[in-house]
Amino acid sequence: MAKDFKPKARLPRGLADRTGPELSATHSMLDKIRAVYALYGFDALETPMMEYTDALGKFLPDQDRPNEGVFSLKDDDEQWLSLRYDLTAPLARHVAEHYDTLPKPFRSYRAGYVFRNEKPGPGRFRQFMQFDADTVGAPGVQADAEICMMAADTLEAVGVPRGDYIIRVNNRKVLDGVMEVIGIGGDENFGRRLTVLRAIDKFDKFGLEGVALLLGAGRKDESGDFTKGAGLDERQSAVVLAMLSGESGLSADGDGAQIEMGGDVEMAAALVSNASFQEGMTELRDIAALVAAAGYQDRVKIDPSVVRGLEYYTGPVYEAELTFEIRDEKGHPVRFGSVAGGGRYDGLVARFKGEKVPATGFSIGVSRLLSALAALGKLDAEAELAPVVVLVMDKQPSRIADYMKMVSNLRANGIRAEMYMGGGGMKAQMKYADKRGAPAVIIQGSNEKEAGEVQIKDLVEGARIAASIADNAEYRAVRPAQFAVKESELVDAIRGVLERRAEPTLELDD
Amino acid sequence: MAKDFKPKARLPRGLADRTGPELSATHSMLDKIRAVYALYGFDALETPMMEYTDALGKFLPDQDRPNEGVFSLKDDDEQWLSLRYDLTAPLARHVAEHYDTLPKPFRSYRAGYVFRNEKPGPGRFRQFMQFDADTVGAPGVQADAEICMMAADTLEAVGVPRGDYIIRVNNRKVLDGVMEVIGIGGDENFGRRLTVLRAIDKFDKFGLEGVALLLGAGRKDESGDFTKGAGLDERQSAVVLAMLSGESGLSADGDGAQIEMGGDVEMAAALVSNASFQEGMTELRDIAALVAAAGYQDRVKIDPSVVRGLEYYTGPVYEAELTFEIRDEKGHPVRFGSVAGGGRYDGLVARFKGEKVPATGFSIGVSRLLSALAALGKLDAEAELAPVVVLVMDKQPSRIADYMKMVSNLRANGIRAEMYMGGGGMKAQMKYADKRGAPAVIIQGSNEKEAGEVQIKDLVEGARIAASIADNAEYRAVRPAQFAVKESELVDAIRGVLERRAEPTLELDD
Repeated sequence: MAKDFKPKARLPRGLADRTGPELSATHSMLDKIRAVYALYGFDALETPMMEYTDALGKFLPDQDRPNEGVFSLKDDDEQWLSLRYDLTAPLARHVAEHYDTLPKPFRSYRAGYVFRNEKPGPGRFRQFMQFDADTVGAPGVQADAEICMMAADTLEAVGVPRGDYIIRVNNRKVLDGVMEVIGIGGDENFGRRLTVLRAIDKFDKFGLEGVALLLGAGRKDESGDFTKGAGLDERQSAVVLAMLSGESGLSADGDGAQIEMGGDVEMAAALVSNASFQEGMTELRDIAALVAAAGYQDRVKIDPSVVRGLEYYTGPVYEAELTFEIRDEKGHPVRFGSVAGGGRYDGLVARFKGEKVPATGFSIGVSRLLSALAALGKLDAEAELAPVVVLVMDKQPSRIADYMKMVSNLRANGIRAEMYMGGGGMKAQMKYADKRGAPAVIIQGSNEKEAGEVQIKDLVEGARIAASIADNAEYRAVRPAQFAVKESELVDAIRGVLERRAEPTLELDD
Repeated sequence: MAKDFKPKARLPRGLADRTGPELSATHSMLDKIRAVYALYGFDALETPMMEYTDALGKFLPDQDRPNEGVFSLKDDDEQWLSLRYDLTAPLARHVAEHYDTLPKPFRSYRAGYVFRNEKPGPGRFRQFMQFDADTVGAPGVQADAEICMMAADTLEAVGVPRGDYIIRVNNRKVLDGVMEVIGIGGDENFGRRLTVLRAIDKFDKFGLEGVALLLGAGRKDESGDFTKGAGLDERQSAVVLAMLSGESGLSADGDGAQIEMGGDVEMAAALVSNASFQEGMTELRDIAALVAAAGYQDRVKIDPSVVRGLEYYTGPVYEAELTFEIRDEKGHPVRFGSVAGGGRYDGLVARFKGEKVPATGFSIGVSRLLSALAALGKLDAEAELAPVVVLVMDKQPSRIADYMKMVSNLRANGIRAEMYMGGGGMKAQMKYADKRGAPAVIIQGSNEKEAGEVQIKDLVEGARIAASIADNAEYRAVRPAQFAVKESELVDAIRGVLERRAEPTLELDD
């Protein structure tokens, strides 16, 4: 029974295999990010891929299954575990678990995969990598300002030129003030505020019009699915939309007196005298001053139209946006958009400890940033050169041993090399070398062996010559870019070929 | 309701958080392994953490739940997914999925976490890292010989001295011959052979005596749990045990004529004329010849007592064993044992394709190897030096901006530095610097500011002096290792302190 079952070889949707050039570019980018984070005094930390579901906050005690959106499973103790969906919730668990022994503030960076049990789409995977840095136990906005400046340094370190990005900063307290002013403050409106936040978070996806629907009665998508809205009236919605559109007139320079709330003078006046709003604006002004003192004012900007929807942010929120334009599939210019973001979350560790622990942190979407660097032509082309291939012209064990010794000698001299390991003949071996992109093959049949020589076929040069030769017979007569050397000169001759090689290129599918 | 629920902050058992020094040593070790694999012509590949359960071979069509031992879950399509439990099964899926476009042989290396839903124990985690290299599409033993030599080069590259390890090679066909000779060959004995293999695989854990029980009627463990045995009779068991104990007299040099099977002359004679046994011995002799020709005969040894129990091996099997002794908890000398292993698995890709694809591969247990390097004192001590901490003596926003500028300047000069980000006073700040292991703190109160100076407190030097001063009052009077410099000389002065610093140390908990 088991023997006859033949599974189909396929990846689950939303997951991807990654190969050499992309992995090498990612590796190099992560090293550069790590260097900046370390310079800023953050230390490496790694948590496992799984946590208890309740520790991730995705499991409420009155439910018998974890939330949708996370991958959950029961272990052999019948306990619910979930794959982490971000790197912040596990950090909160780590800090709460080791609170008494950790230095405070606790400054850590973490890189790793996170998982979402959601519908995948173009560029949206169910497993993707984030690279976070967080300061836990830091009450002042200097910690937020520092992370914003570090975000700028990080983007430049990986290759985004100054001027092609901006770190935009807002404050959740400003938004809280808006909520209070439109009459949905207080514990009893918790659920409704959440709906408003989620609506706002869809701004990138659906635009102002879509958000307006989600703030009001609701929105039907193309498939006919209806999402219930927050039920705000027109006047309430207008204030939120004015914030989002950047037409509120809010600015860190002014005192907030001249704000415009969709022309609603009464609302504007209420906002100016709202405590949460004022506190938020003061914090933004302090951040702006710190940023300016350190000379980052051209890279880190206060912008009250930035809203990050995650319910757990409690203060400053920030977003790293790439401002250069690329072309979409239809050739239209579009902005690359957000590649990283974060904010202050004073309540997350409190879930475990019962008392608030001030914290602020920042997360880079690694694949997104890599795609951006590819679009900018700034990927590290340190991709490995393919190996030189020693062909197997004679399958006698003693000759195989000779070829292996030849390869061993090349490797000992730092040259990436291999003997052909398949079962095929000359044609299959040349096809293999081509497919690998080998810069050269080494040939030693019995004649060459007798003469103490090897033939070297320079495949890069060969391809170049072949392109200029029309006739097949002529090509065979010339045997382009093939030459004989003494066996003792093999290493030097191969080095010469490698120096003439073309640079490897990298394509990303995203 | 949700608001009152306070989860306990704890990791699921068998999972671990990893911190700076261990991560940094792992990173450095992985880079060295990667360099060797690349030099040998292997290319990087990464598969996701999850696969369809049937693609991993852990799901038989007549079951409604996946096997125990793997973490499995249903996605939002109600399909069973499992976390990968090794890196070989996903490779088989990748090769089968892309068979027509891949170069053949396909040579790849893969590093990553794998997961086991099993009882954890000391040094046994439910998430751990492996680093594999495989050649798929290589029928000859030269591919096995190459991987054995690469294993030796890899161990030396990460710091295991020659002589402190051995790569031991056996052949599954030799074992198959033994099975046939004792009368449990043939399809109808598939289940029984599996039980024998599993018993043999427990040799490291239970010794000869335990294996003897598992080959016979069965074995009761300390908790009273009973494992049913393979039901071999004494004569059958004696042959298997003779192999395991290394007393079989098998050797790659001889022709197998002089083998001893527990003194059973009849069994020994049957073995010598068994086809599978002879084929296995011939392959081992070929491997020995290739290894000798390349000069690895002192590092790669044929040893017919090596058995790896995994049912999917079909030919040569190999194991990298560390031979130096360490002390166990009771001070007894023990060998470190196996840190890597692998073998030929010609049937694994066939699960998908229906036809056999010859393949051989090798897997390093990353944590085990790291522990071994720690025991040898060969871990890279490139662990990050803790940052210099600028203390916050004055919380005025303008002074905070000054301190941040100071930090910015240190970082611009490549010095790892940070401003204290917590809310505490002088005492908390010094405690923080101590806990981080900061090499120095920088102090600028209003007096120093006025004088254009900063105070530098060398904490490494300070600790050294403090150890030699008995009296508290005397200590305060001396203020050891604290000195003032002009603000413009800060960078040079800190550089001087860092050059005098002590080397960081690394402790592993395993």
